[in-house]
Amino acid sequence: MAHSPFTVSQLASLLEAEPVDSDHLIEGIGTLQSATEHQLSFLHSGRYQHQLSSCRAGAVLVRAEHRDDVTGIALVVADPYIAYARATALFCGLSETGSGISPAAQISPTALLGDHLTIGANVVIADGAQIGSGVTIGANSVIGSNCVIGENTRIAANVTLYHEVRLGASCVIHSGAVIGADGFGFANNNGEWIKIHQLGSVRVGDRVEIGAGTTVDRGALDDTVIGDGVILDNQIQVGHNVNIGDNTAIAACTAIAGSARIGKNCTIAGGVGIAGHLTIADGTHITAMTLVSKSILQPGVFSSGTVMEPHQQWKRNVVRFRQLDELSRRVKCLENIVKQHTEGQPE
Amino acid sequence: MAHSPFTVSQLASLLEAEPVDSDHLIEGIGTLQSATEHQLSFLHSGRYQHQLSSCRAGAVLVRAEHRDDVTGIALVVADPYIAYARATALFCGLSETGSGISPAAQISPTALLGDHLTIGANVVIADGAQIGSGVTIGANSVIGSNCVIGENTRIAANVTLYHEVRLGASCVIHSGAVIGADGFGFANNNGEWIKIHQLGSVRVGDRVEIGAGTTVDRGALDDTVIGDGVILDNQIQVGHNVNIGDNTAIAACTAIAGSARIGKNCTIAGGVGIAGHLTIADGTHITAMTLVSKSILQPGVFSSGTVMEPHQQWKRNVVRFRQLDELSRRVKCLENIVKQHTEGQPE
Amino acid sequence: MAHSPFTVSQLASLLEAEPVDSDHLIEGIGTLQSATEHQLSFLHSGRYQHQLSSCRAGAVLVRAEHRDDVTGIALVVADPYIAYARATALFCGLSETGSGISPAAQISPTALLGDHLTIGANVVIADGAQIGSGVTIGANSVIGSNCVIGENTRIAANVTLYHEVRLGASCVIHSGAVIGADGFGFANNNGEWIKIHQLGSVRVGDRVEIGAGTTVDRGALDDTVIGDGVILDNQIQVGHNVNIGDNTAIAACTAIAGSARIGKNCTIAGGVGIAGHLTIADGTHITAMTLVSKSILQPGVFSSGTVMEPHQQWKRNVVRFRQLDELSRRVKCLENIVKQHTEGQPE
Repeated sequence: MAHSPFTVSQLASLLEAEPVDSDHLIEGIGTLQSATEHQLSFLHSGRYQHQLSSCRAGAVLVRAEHRDDVTGIALVVADPYIAYARATALFCGLSETGSGISPAAQISPTALLGDHLTIGANVVIADGAQIGSGVTIGANSVIGSNCVIGENTRIAANVTLYHEVRLGASCVIHSGAVIGADGFGFANNNGEWIKIHQLGSVRVGDRVEIGAGTTVDRGALDDTVIGDGVILDNQIQVGHNVNIGDNTAIAACTAIAGSARIGKNCTIAGGVGIAGHLTIADGTHITAMTLVSKSILQPGVFSSGTVMEPHQQWKRNVVRFRQLDELSRRVKCLENIVKQHTEGQPE
Repeated sequence: MAHSPFTVSQLASLLEAEPVDSDHLIEGIGTLQSATEHQLSFLHSGRYQHQLSSCRAGAVLVRAEHRDDVTGIALVVADPYIAYARATALFCGLSETGSGISPAAQISPTALLGDHLTIGANVVIADGAQIGSGVTIGANSVIGSNCVIGENTRIAANVTLYHEVRLGASCVIHSGAVIGADGFGFANNNGEWIKIHQLGSVRVGDRVEIGAGTTVDRGALDDTVIGDGVILDNQIQVGHNVNIGDNTAIAACTAIAGSARIGKNCTIAGGVGIAGHLTIADGTHITAMTLVSKSILQPGVFSSGTVMEPHQQWKRNVVRFRQLDELSRRVKCLENIVKQHTEGQPE
Repeated sequence: MAHSPFTVSQLASLLEAEPVDSDHLIEGIGTLQSATEHQLSFLHSGRYQHQLSSCRAGAVLVRAEHRDDVTGIALVVADPYIAYARATALFCGLSETGSGISPAAQISPTALLGDHLTIGANVVIADGAQIGSGVTIGANSVIGSNCVIGENTRIAANVTLYHEVRLGASCVIHSGAVIGADGFGFANNNGEWIKIHQLGSVRVGDRVEIGAGTTVDRGALDDTVIGDGVILDNQIQVGHNVNIGDNTAIAACTAIAGSARIGKNCTIAGGVGIAGHLTIADGTHITAMTLVSKSILQPGVFSSGTVMEPHQQWKRNVVRFRQLDELSRRVKCLENIVKQHTEGQPE
């Protein structure tokens, strides 16, 4: 594959745009407002259309209908946002071949290593781990015993994988993520907590992204399972024995309690709490900071909480919230009285 | 102590079940549905009783009343869940003696080291630290100066202890946990924040579990204190000078602001927020995602928030929430009018 | 600068108190209740005034009005809390000159290093990084390629900076913080997520504090920007392309979605969620666990949620919340009926 910079003609071909004949060089990507003449830009949404006239980008990804609004070179594609996503891979500077294994890495002689690896300084790989070809592991990450990491998966610096965790191919795991720590399992014996050692592990599918500081606990007996193509943002908590279906997307700071089963193609916003041992249907959408305390058996959009308001007004309303059941009874009582007194009377 | 596998007779003895005479070997634990003939299972709750008939486990922990429902060998115990918890310790594969100190660990010559240690590669132990016998420290963890770690405590990989943190005996600290970082203390001087250096530390009792990514800040002047037997799940935030009583359990993603005092034997669910400088009575239970903004002086169960509903319905209700005080006044007004017009009239 | 211990006279001078002539030695700081005779204390708020009479501190920072209530030596200052904050810097034991570079650090030969550095064991500094003079980097931290770190910034152990992150001078970054991980950007292509590689970076101003486990994502195209003097507590999530204005303070576990613009001098409490692509005015205050789903164009205090109540009572009220729109309509209906029947009647 060609490397940056690209000519506009090359980009048109790489991004499956209508062919363009131009040797103008493109070195990066910018927004419509910030892009310079050697950058590519894109029109994602009609509401930014007015920015096209002043855009200085050397080339702009647009739908056919906006072709004539581009002052520079229009790259006409079916979906400019998807073309933009593909373009970012061309300019992100990821090395395409392994840059080798740091002499300061600590790798067990019983680990099995694939080809074309990039393993940073102070990485620790324990006994029996299997590292697929093309894998990158950032500095100071720790790979526990008997872990299996699929091909071309990229693990950033300071990641921790406990023992026997299995990651699929082409995953991305960000710094501070912890996969396979003990699930929160304890039995209460007359007030004291007896630890339930967590004997399962974690299985992560292919093309999964796990954000910075996200924690995925190992299962109690069976495994915690994350499907293919799942994308998890930062600081998400995935409890033991949770099952997340393929291509589900979860935003930052969401917490999922143990044994919850989340369907495929769900989108779960940030700060959501999902109770344990429930089921969420495929294709469900949950809005930010919702508490999901019951199963969702039919897909839809679900919410809880209240919306922001000025504090003084909010204070008056929350006091009333605590009287809401009583208020409801008073209204019922009024309705009864009014009904009695109006029956038989002319309106 | 015997090692896995165990005969069923041995397990009966180790788990204080009624004696059984069987050389059948058990190599692990499974659920009623997944256990194989060389695994142990358990009946925790009557609602899974119907699974006993098809269970293939080699032995099943049950109460006496279910003895005859087991198709394999029944191990009769007083509390199957507690027996299961104890059984997990037999099969978790923890090494019982120290496997030594990695030559790639960086240990200050002024650190005091106990016997039977397991210290991983790239562990850094600073000046004056005291490491009790039987302690395990995972790869790439950092132990600050003058820390004291009690006997048999296990610290996973990539844990950070700042200076002068004291951990009791038999604790478990998971990866990504940070203990002893500065509390969030600043004085505002005409709009600029002046840092209040945090001169206290953190004291953690015996048999405490601290989850992955959980942070416990050091105190401003006095110490932050976590009692004996406390269990903290992942990604919990414990502010400076917080005091958590013995055997309290806190689920993931709960945040506790500075100087809160939480009693003993509390159970606090996930995503709870606890405001600073308040007191929570022994034995209090807080449900998920509740905001505790006042002290709780008598134990009980406490909640806040609203419950999930379909988004369109929720939108209509939250609009009304913002009018709730007004609605309440309107009802009061109606009551007054109705009262005036119905007094003295025949019902 | 003098080192601890200090005479009371020295402290008076260093803290800009009224001059005092005393050679009494002060070795640390304590609260009014805990301070010993060789410790300094302070009266922050009138509500602790009654503790002065029994306070054993060698010296107490007070306003002039409380001068005569101090049993030991009064150090009279304009603002005792600010003087206390300054005093903590005198007793926190930070080394003032670099203690050198650990031979176990892994530093690229192309990194540019300032003077008076303190770099711990197993620190990894990648190609092209620029480390300002007086910088401290704790053990096992990783500094990505081409990062720029301003003078006197202190980075704790186990911190991760991805490539090209810029930190200003005199910042403090706590353990477990991750700066510059990929923003959560994906394009959905028929159900599959295509990664949008994040080509921007993170710019952090001067005198910024970033708490333990806090994550700040790099921008998609432009940078994520944190202004001067911003203080971020633990486990905060800052999404890509967020902009936080100077001197804004944010408490633990708050999550800020992508492209939000937060003004200067805001105070945002813990557990708050801020939606993406919105604007918050300078000087805004948000209370704990509020969901900010719309822009705030005029400063003020804002809240959402409900307040804690006993669980049984709460259960009745949340059921009514789901009927609130209906209840509101019923009240409107009652009002109409009552109005019809009372018009023209004597009151």
